[in-house]
Amino acid sequence: MPNITVEILRGRTVEQRRAFVEAVTEAAVVHLGATPERTRIRFLEVGENEVAVGGVFVQPPDAS
Amino acid sequence: MPNITVEILRGRTVEQRRAFVEAVTEAAVVHLGATPERTRIRFLEVGENEVAVGGVFVQPPDAS
Amino acid sequence: MPNITVEILRGRTVEQRRAFVEAVTEAAVVHLGATPERTRIRFLEVGENEVAVGGVFVQPPDAS
Amino acid sequence: MPNITVEILRGRTVEQRRAFVEAVTEAAVVHLGATPERTRIRFLEVGENEVAVGGVFVQPPDAS
Amino acid sequence: MPNITVEILRGRTVEQRRAFVEAVTEAAVVHLGATPERTRIRFLEVGENEVAVGGVFVQPPDAS
Amino acid sequence: MPNITVEILRGRTVEQRRAFVEAVTEAAVVHLGATPERTRIRFLEVGENEVAVGGVFVQPPDAS
Repeated sequence: MPNITVEILRGRTVEQRRAFVEAVTEAAVVHLGATPERTRIRFLEVGENEVAVGGVFVQPPDAS
Repeated sequence: MPNITVEILRGRTVEQRRAFVEAVTEAAVVHLGATPERTRIRFLEVGENEVAVGGVFVQPPDAS
Repeated sequence: MPNITVEILRGRTVEQRRAFVEAVTEAAVVHLGATPERTRIRFLEVGENEVAVGGVFVQPPDAS
Repeated sequence: MPNITVEILRGRTVEQRRAFVEAVTEAAVVHLGATPERTRIRFLEVGENEVAVGGVFVQPPDAS
Repeated sequence: MPNITVEILRGRTVEQRRAFVEAVTEAAVVHLGATPERTRIRFLEVGENEVAVGGVFVQPPDAS
Repeated sequence: MPNITVEILRGRTVEQRRAFVEAVTEAAVVHLGATPERTRIRFLEVGENEVAVGGVFVQPPDAS
C-alpha cells in the first residue's frame, strides 16, 4: 500500500502520466510514510459517453 | 457526491445510457438530496470473457 | 449486470437508500433492458476526512 | 456475493481465465460458504502504461 | 498483479478469510502464472442496508 | 476528473492525509492539466485481516 486508482479522461500522453506517477509516488513516501516499491498506481481511462456529471456526458478532448 | 460506477455488458446505445443517466441523476436528487452537478455517473463496459457468474462466463449479446 | 456502486457521504436514512435503490433498479430495467434480479446496487459510505475535492476535505453533514 | 474484481496484466488466454474462475468459485464455496450462482468474478485488464509500481510503469508481456 | 478485490457480506471469520486467500493465491500462481508476492487480495465487507439485488436489501446473517 | 481512490492501511493522521491530498491535487494540475475543483480524491482505509499479499495478511501498525 497505498494502492491508488486514477480515473482520467482519455488523451493524456505517456510522459504526462509518468510525471504524475513520479510526483504521486513521492507524495506517498513524503506524506504517508509509504515505500516506493509498495506504492501502486493504476490508470483507468474514460472514453466517449462513459462519464456524466449533472446528467450530461463529459467528453474527452479528442472525442469525435 | 454521489459518485456512481455502473458496470454493464457491452452493447447499450448512447441513447440508452443517456436516458439511464438522466433517470439516476434525478433519483439522486429526489431520494438522496444530491445536487445534479455533484452527481457523477461512470460506465465501465464489460466485454467477452470478462465476467463470470457461477464459474461460467456471461457474454455480451454481440459476442462472436 | 448491471453492477452499480454508489459512493455517498455518510448520513442518509435506510428509507432514502431504499427509495433510491428502487428507482435505480427500475431505471435499469426500463432504460438498459436489465432484469431486476440481475441488478445489484452497493453503497459505499464516505465518512470524515475521507474525500477531498479541490484539495479540501468534504465532510458529511453530521461530522463532529 | 461474493463480488470479486480481478485486475491483471493484458495477455492471459481465455483458458487461463476460465481455469482461474473455476478455482476461485470453488474456493468461495468451500471456504466462504458462498453459492456458485451468487459468486461473481470480473476481470479488468491492464494494458501498457496503465499501472506503475515504485514510480515505474509495469508493462504487459506483449507490450510494444 | 493480480490485484483482487473481494466484496463479501459481513460475518466471515479470520480463518475462513485466510483459507480463501491461500486458495486464491495458489489459483493465481497455478492458472495465471502470477508470483505469490505480487498477488494482492483485499476484502471489502458489506454490512446492513448496503447491498441490494432486485431492488431489495440483502442483509448479512448477523443483521439486527 | 481525475477521480482518484487511495487504499491505505488504517492509521494515518488527518494532517498526513491533508498534506497528501494537497500534493496529489497539485500534481494533477501541473502534470495532467486538471483543474483543482474537478480533482476528487477518496481514501479507503484498510483494517485488520482485510488485505493479503503473497497469501499472508498485512496488518495495520496499530493492529491488536
